[in-house]
Amino acid sequence: MAALPDRGVPLSTLSPKFLHTNSTSHTWPFSAIAELIDNAYDPDVSAKQFWIDKTVVKGELCLTFMDNGNGLNHETIHKMLSFGYSDKVAVNGLEPIGIYGNGFKSGSMRLGKDAIVFSRSSSSSCVGMLSQTYLEMINANQIVVPIVCFEKKNSNQFSVRKKDEASLRDILRYSLFSTKEELLAEINAIHIPGSQQETGTRIIIWNLRRTSTGAPEFDFDKDRYDIQIPSEIYETMQDPSQHPNRPNSYIPESVYSLRAYCSILYLKPRMQVMVRGHKVKSELIAKSLAFIRKDHYKPIFVKKRIPITFGYNTKSKDQYGIMMYHKNRLIKAYERVGCQLKANNMGVGVIGVIECNFLDPTHNKQSFIESDKYRKTMTNLGIKLEEYWNEIRYRRKKENPNDTVPVEDAMKRPDQNWVQCDRCLHWRKLPDGIDCSKLPDKWFCRMNPDPQFRSCLVEEEPEDSDDDQPSYRKTYKQQEREDRRQQEQKMQLELKHHEERRLNSLKKQGEALGRQHENLVQQLNQT
Amino acid sequence: MAALPDRGVPLSTLSPKFLHTNSTSHTWPFSAIAELIDNAYDPDVSAKQFWIDKTVVKGELCLTFMDNGNGLNHETIHKMLSFGYSDKVAVNGLEPIGIYGNGFKSGSMRLGKDAIVFSRSSSSSCVGMLSQTYLEMINANQIVVPIVCFEKKNSNQFSVRKKDEASLRDILRYSLFSTKEELLAEINAIHIPGSQQETGTRIIIWNLRRTSTGAPEFDFDKDRYDIQIPSEIYETMQDPSQHPNRPNSYIPESVYSLRAYCSILYLKPRMQVMVRGHKVKSELIAKSLAFIRKDHYKPIFVKKRIPITFGYNTKSKDQYGIMMYHKNRLIKAYERVGCQLKANNMGVGVIGVIECNFLDPTHNKQSFIESDKYRKTMTNLGIKLEEYWNEIRYRRKKENPNDTVPVEDAMKRPDQNWVQCDRCLHWRKLPDGIDCSKLPDKWFCRMNPDPQFRSCLVEEEPEDSDDDQPSYRKTYKQQEREDRRQQEQKMQLELKHHEERRLNSLKKQGEALGRQHENLVQQLNQT
Ligand SMILES: [Zn+2]
Ligand SMILES: [Zn+2]
Repeated sequence: MAALPDRGVPLSTLSPKFLHTNSTSHTWPFSAIAELIDNAYDPDVSAKQFWIDKTVVKGELCLTFMDNGNGLNHETIHKMLSFGYSDKVAVNGLEPIGIYGNGFKSGSMRLGKDAIVFSRSSSSSCVGMLSQTYLEMINANQIVVPIVCFEKKNSNQFSVRKKDEASLRDILRYSLFSTKEELLAEINAIHIPGSQQETGTRIIIWNLRRTSTGAPEFDFDKDRYDIQIPSEIYETMQDPSQHPNRPNSYIPESVYSLRAYCSILYLKPRMQVMVRGHKVKSELIAKSLAFIRKDHYKPIFVKKRIPITFGYNTKSKDQYGIMMYHKNRLIKAYERVGCQLKANNMGVGVIGVIECNFLDPTHNKQSFIESDKYRKTMTNLGIKLEEYWNEIRYRRKKENPNDTVPVEDAMKRPDQNWVQCDRCLHWRKLPDGIDCSKLPDKWFCRMNPDPQFRSCLVEEEPEDSDDDQPSYRKTYKQQEREDRRQQEQKMQLELKHHEERRLNSLKKQGEALGRQHENLVQQLNQT
Repeated sequence: MAALPDRGVPLSTLSPKFLHTNSTSHTWPFSAIAELIDNAYDPDVSAKQFWIDKTVVKGELCLTFMDNGNGLNHETIHKMLSFGYSDKVAVNGLEPIGIYGNGFKSGSMRLGKDAIVFSRSSSSSCVGMLSQTYLEMINANQIVVPIVCFEKKNSNQFSVRKKDEASLRDILRYSLFSTKEELLAEINAIHIPGSQQETGTRIIIWNLRRTSTGAPEFDFDKDRYDIQIPSEIYETMQDPSQHPNRPNSYIPESVYSLRAYCSILYLKPRMQVMVRGHKVKSELIAKSLAFIRKDHYKPIFVKKRIPITFGYNTKSKDQYGIMMYHKNRLIKAYERVGCQLKANNMGVGVIGVIECNFLDPTHNKQSFIESDKYRKTMTNLGIKLEEYWNEIRYRRKKENPNDTVPVEDAMKRPDQNWVQCDRCLHWRKLPDGIDCSKLPDKWFCRMNPDPQFRSCLVEEEPEDSDDDQPSYRKTYKQQEREDRRQQEQKMQLELKHHEERRLNSLKKQGEALGRQHENLVQQLNQT
């Protein structure tokens, strides 16, 4: 079984069974879908749009994923179908998410047994296949990945290189597509309607995972513009030990609705995701909160302060906790910390948003690797959140001493209104008082009341540089200090009074003694 | 980069970076060590003993793992250093644990950057190396795994096959061992003292993982016969969201002590584990409980009933929950279910033991893959546990109505006393009344008071066949039914009395009317 490369040392090889093994880290199916979205989002592909849909090919239910990025050639498709080749680097300051070089394999093989990739780059049109069924049928003892590239000869004639012929034969025999023309038709489908761009990648996954009852693991019928995890599954999906105190009614929508999950998947969304043909409205979580305060966390192992945005969820007081991102990608959602883990109302309704680039995500990007860095971070987030909670309660009490409604139960509106342009994808701040729910479904920069940002050509309003910005003032702490000072003053005053009283009584005793003495003297004088 | 095998289709290849990626699923270091133990435990190796130790080689701190199993040859070492080749099958009814063919890679590369394997089988002596440092230094773009086999020529002369020469060169250059003689010395160290057997495998891992402060992730000093996770790490190790209500004092010893973890790693231990030279006392959890009741779970997707043993922890009321095994291997420990997840005292102190071979463990074997099967199982375990809790409380109340001490707080002793023979590893039941803590450290069958099982040659006492055994009688349910019946009887009696009273009063009314009537008749007669 050993293939000896030039060095004369055996290669470590891959068993077909490893495809399943490797996919088991995605226990939650959206975690697998997110891997495919990440791949398109990353700077090497840098797609502006991403489509997720279901389709039926020759009677077989399929999931499809398409991006309008740069497309792949023979070499990059081969890396995509191999393990651990992520030579992704930051492009124009955009950091890649896919650092493990395993997203496509683990993600696609979690969703179904077989996947085929169609891609058109500026230089070529290629098809690659990663199929467990194929490997079983040919009795493979290593993972082979048929890859074929089409070369345009003239007009609509495409030729296949000699060395790809075996791959073409296997793809036509073992995929859902049985002629070269069917493959070319799928490549042509990568053309984005209404756009000049013709590069991009299209992934079709079939033999989709099913539950033990034989039903697909997704519900495509409940909402025709969404892909949902059926309620009987998501209601008990989360490991009960993980959220013992979270009744089902508090399960965040993002747990079972792909549309909701996609809306918060990126901290600063730069790619439009379409689920079943309809655009996902991205949510800038940190900007949708009420009573926003900016705090910072300065770990000893990181040079810079890490900004944290705290605020109250304006939509539901039951969804709260920390939104933890890593290189712009959501890792943990609504992760409760500190006082939120205790059986009281402290921290209820409070959301924190932090980008923890200094931590390492786990294999499935749904958690961070347990390390002392991670543990310190979680402890610290708990402390900061409690401070925020105290601060807001103190401020409200001070501003309106008679208000007995807890903050989390009061009506709240986001501190700021932000809207995304449907053409340039820039985010624009709207003036206070505008009701965002009344904006048109498609909004463009030219509708902006603020003339400064009324064109798609204008860059986004620069974010406040986090370096310059101070953490919010924890006034409740000043109050606490003030309270302590007053308490001390009061005690000193009491001490003084006490001393005075003692002096007084001594004085009176002295006077009484004096009088007695005088009486005695008088009596003596009289006798 | 493509190597084309016979079929003419490109191979999927492995990047050296994948070694790290693939190891990240083991967030908890004992999870990585357990993989190495599993490999020796599995029927293809079927070691009787396994040694875990630390050592220092040329100034470098190392972990060592050694078994006295069948040993490996060139081909099996190559599979061990490749991905997904688990052709393990059941031997004599013993099912293999390692189903993924990834344990050695993910486990060893989690513990350190580099590993070397020495093995002696009946036919050969081989050395293989999986080293991230080596791959970095030779600038490899695929994972290569040097493997060398030594052939005995005469007396103490060993020769190396031509095709292994390049591997030998790289091992001597990039491992901690720089001469052939040093390698052979390590192979010779596989000889087990006091035993005839000379086959086995010895793994040395170096460049051990360190924390951000540069300290090793293990504490070797706190207990010289244990390998522990330092307290500042384990105290906050578990994801706080996973066990929000579990104060640190309730962290099971198995979380931070390798010795304690090894003692419960297998449901029915058949291999002796030595941590730093001292034998680990295996614990038969299901047999160490008090008030044991045998229940069953019959999932719709499994033909047979699955036995569950419930009982009270006799050592600590704070460690409770379900011990979930899979093919004899512990997957989840102290997993709280049902009423144990609520903020009351229900289910406190109760342990359940179940072997869930019908579920699929995750990649790191620390959890099960989320599926509807898993969810149904957890729900059902919650119900069964609550029934057990009700039953024991009811029984105690009935037997001793004046006892106000809750079961979980009362002194308890295990229902049965079991001890393992140090020679044959058989488990023997001791008569009631024997205090196990007073047994000698080394116990042998010949010390058994029961003459029937007083020899190592005698097989273990057969377990009660679970198929024949009924689930325990849930007498509290009978009581509930009885209570309901009495309630109904009482109501019927009341209804009857009510009816009687009504009849009586009607009768009296009738009589009164009768008397009035008679009076009237008399008056009429008189006028
Ligand atoms: Zn615009
Ligand atoms: Zn014995």
